[in-house]
Amino acid sequence: MEVKLNEDERIDDLQLKGLKIIQNPKWFCFGIDSVLLSDFINNIKNNSFVLDLGTGTGILPILLCGKTSLKKVIGIEVQEDVAEIAKRNIELNNLKDRFTVINDNINNIDKYFGKNEFDIIITNPPYKKNNDGVKNENRQKLISRHEILATLEDFIKVASYCLKDKGSFYMVHKVERLVDIICHMREYKIEPKRLRFVFTNEKSKPTLVLIEGVKNAKPFLKIDSNIYIYNEDGEYTTQIKEIYSEK
Amino acid sequence: MEVKLNEDERIDDLQLKGLKIIQNPKWFCFGIDSVLLSDFINNIKNNSFVLDLGTGTGILPILLCGKTSLKKVIGIEVQEDVAEIAKRNIELNNLKDRFTVINDNINNIDKYFGKNEFDIIITNPPYKKNNDGVKNENRQKLISRHEILATLEDFIKVASYCLKDKGSFYMVHKVERLVDIICHMREYKIEPKRLRFVFTNEKSKPTLVLIEGVKNAKPFLKIDSNIYIYNEDGEYTTQIKEIYSEK
Repeated sequence: MEVKLNEDERIDDLQLKGLKIIQNPKWFCFGIDSVLLSDFINNIKNNSFVLDLGTGTGILPILLCGKTSLKKVIGIEVQEDVAEIAKRNIELNNLKDRFTVINDNINNIDKYFGKNEFDIIITNPPYKKNNDGVKNENRQKLISRHEILATLEDFIKVASYCLKDKGSFYMVHKVERLVDIICHMREYKIEPKRLRFVFTNEKSKPTLVLIEGVKNAKPFLKIDSNIYIYNEDGEYTTQIKEIYSEK
Repeated sequence: MEVKLNEDERIDDLQLKGLKIIQNPKWFCFGIDSVLLSDFINNIKNNSFVLDLGTGTGILPILLCGKTSLKKVIGIEVQEDVAEIAKRNIELNNLKDRFTVINDNINNIDKYFGKNEFDIIITNPPYKKNNDGVKNENRQKLISRHEILATLEDFIKVASYCLKDKGSFYMVHKVERLVDIICHMREYKIEPKRLRFVFTNEKSKPTLVLIEGVKNAKPFLKIDSNIYIYNEDGEYTTQIKEIYSEK
């Protein structure tokens, strides 16, 4: 499949069933957080109807299409130029029957879907508050990284609107926001059921957290074993190598 | 100091500045959770005014009096016969100037103190919901372990009532209740700021969590390095031995 590449764009091989992804390194490239989240999502069935909130260039749906036989995933992305890359990624990977991209703000999801339609919602949202840190970044990086066009609460509220009763919600985020996440999830009836913390190495404190919630479920939290990214020699741990090889 | 021992009671040496504790093994004995919580509490100053909600036989205040030079700690305990042991522990350890026990339900705290009087609140509350699990236990164990006379929400609500602005709250609890804890803490304006997970060993999942919150603080959560209780030979880890020796 031939697709057009714009200036500064590159194609990366995902090392997974021949899947590839177009990215623009000047904007925002997918990171290990997307790979870890796709590994953490563990209950996709063939007929699961899946929604990715803030899909970017489509990395999460593409990884899930490679790992599972899911039939239909929708991605919604607010940035027109980024959503346009996602559309070319669908073409490049021959996924147009399985993965559809909508170019709109997640807060407009009710223009496209009714309440309680999805089995599974996944999201790797912007990590930083709107007023947080340096913002001398280009528009695409800014919107991908900061809560400018949608807040953390919006992501959780929209997920709750879209999820079926007992449907699953999966997110990756910074540890420092975990209290906000947990409180908003409970506020919008998505009960946090499982956490997994991600450490740079065995000596560090965790920086990322993977979260699974279930809509209208009873409270009972479990915490999975930790993920350590690097070993003491600065190389990927066996754990990470295994996740990458099963990606 | 000679104190009276009732039937079934024993005196344990705390291996800390000669401190001892009377306990009744048929009721409820302090465990490693109290020792880990006393190690986790890291900002007691000489003039800190400290309150222990559900003090039992007084183990937390006694450990803190041994570890720090705090001048005044109050413990409140609902069970008359357990509070009576705490009073004998105060006598046994010659702590009557530093540690005072009140025999009442934590929900009656406003009979004794006004709002916002304490610098630090500590608690090792009952872990189990009222309707949870087997209850063929004696009255003392039942009340110490189950939320019969006060709920988790009560403990947090009372802590918030008693704490000064920017005062600290410390609790140990089961991981499965972490979502309830975090949501109630935020509801009552005690922002969760630090968590530390306790694992039986490196291969297990965490069972206990230590929590520090600060009243009216801004959100930003940190997670400390994990605590592992046993090494692969089934012995206490160096980490635990160090905590016990600094106790």
